Amino acid sequence: MKLWLNGRLIAPESARLDPSDRGFTLGDGRFETIRYENGRAVRLDRHLARLRQAAAFLAIPLDWSDRQIEAGIDAVVAAANLAAAAIRITLSRGPAPRGLLPPAAPEPTLAITAAPLAPPAPPARIVIATVTCRNEASPLSRLKTLNYLDNILARREALVRGADDAILLNTRGEVAEASVANVFILEDGVLRTPPIDDGALPGIARGVLIERCGVVETTLRPADLLSAQVVLLSNSLGLRLVMSIDGNMIGDGDVPDEVTEPLRIALASP
Amino acid sequence: MKLWLNGRLIAPESARLDPSDRGFTLGDGRFETIRYENGRAVRLDRHLARLRQAAAFLAIPLDWSDRQIEAGIDAVVAAANLAAAAIRITLSRGPAPRGLLPPAAPEPTLAITAAPLAPPAPPARIVIATVTCRNEASPLSRLKTLNYLDNILARREALVRGADDAILLNTRGEVAEASVANVFILEDGVLRTPPIDDGALPGIARGVLIERCGVVETTLRPADLLSAQVVLLSNSLGLRLVMSIDGNMIGDGDVPDEVTEPLRIALASP
Repeated sequence: MKLWLNGRLIAPESARLDPSDRGFTLGDGRFETIRYENGRAVRLDRHLARLRQAAAFLAIPLDWSDRQIEAGIDAVVAAANLAAAAIRITLSRGPAPRGLLPPAAPEPTLAITAAPLAPPAPPARIVIATVTCRNEASPLSRLKTLNYLDNILARREALVRGADDAILLNTRGEVAEASVANVFILEDGVLRTPPIDDGALPGIARGVLIERCGVVETTLRPADLLSAQVVLLSNSLGLRLVMSIDGNMIGDGDVPDEVTEPLRIALASP
Repeated sequence: MKLWLNGRLIAPESARLDPSDRGFTLGDGRFETIRYENGRAVRLDRHLARLRQAAAFLAIPLDWSDRQIEAGIDAVVAAANLAAAAIRITLSRGPAPRGLLPPAAPEPTLAITAAPLAPPAPPARIVIATVTCRNEASPLSRLKTLNYLDNILARREALVRGADDAILLNTRGEVAEASVANVFILEDGVLRTPPIDDGALPGIARGVLIERCGVVETTLRPADLLSAQVVLLSNSLGLRLVMSIDGNMIGDGDVPDEVTEPLRIALASP
């Protein structure tokens, strides 16, 4: 599968990342995951706005225009001959000598890849991660950075415990997010999701559901998940129902279409 | 400067890191920084033991033997023609398809680089980072992982505030560590350093100072730093005095040699 690397479409076997790239040595960078279907990247404008905002916060220059990035996405999708794809845009601060302080004139790395879109997943068995937690006090909890080890640990804990995914709590024991998705509950007819201040990543799909489906930001505790009628996970690639948490079934196992259909419609609209 | 990459000594311009390397895409890996002088890597046994322990925790296979890694270090130092060097060993989970879950059969990346050792630094002006904090509740706070963005943010804050380095507090507001060093204070003749549970990285130099110089692990608050007679930073590359914190001078500006000399001797011994 060819990738777009700093403006060139190349075969992976000839793609060369400098081993001194700060993305590799220090996790010094940022990424976006975007759904691609019907010939275009879904909500690319929001993804690129979020990418630029984070790049500015991290002081990583991003000199590629939106049009150039969009052309890069189209090129990798076309080269892979995919009708639907999961796009990843990775921005790192690029190669640098050793030391924590960013170089004065960084030459950032921008990589775009496409992978087949996984089919919709069945309802998930999830666990509440015990091995680690999310640091809601760090501004990085609001950015999709290359520092994903806490999430990897949580995801691995899920595997070991026979589950599909894990929810990370914040340092106060409140719900932050799943390993690669935001968390939503339905209770008494109201959809709720943890606020950003609780360590939830400001997901693009999350933003759409708040805007279009009246989702309310509320601090959630693990008990709120267990007593909810419906628990959902969302990210830019899709929506997934939660079947059980730590082995406890959620709701009565029957989620009416009138709950999920408006969400799917909202997420499917441009 | 040539680097050792997965068993081969190569020129950086021909070194090729796969852009799907999880070290780059997810910060999924670990590193060591080691002082090299007098023809050998200082306390290499401890560094390699720590590297293997962390690799086991992260479930990243490390099939290279200690002898092979040592030969790699010697080779990069010789190729760079350095008498003294800062060695970095980076271990990542290696290339993988997209997704958080580690591949079943990872092919890890091991890279060894050498850089000139910086001369001893003058006493540091430091700040207490306000932009972010260290998550002492994550097991990653006890590992030198590739997730260094919080430390980068803190180090950049120091630069912006006209200082040389920053101290990160933990989520409870207690002292954890500096951006690339452990923190020590001298008060009433006793040397103290924050315990691991407070978010301090278990530095190799820190371990030596605890074993050989009677350093006591105690929770430290910012006020403890400000009222200390002496504040010191240590890492595997050296020891550094702190001149001021947030603009407040530490002690009377005169650190007697009998304080620092035993520490330097302890760190200089094998």
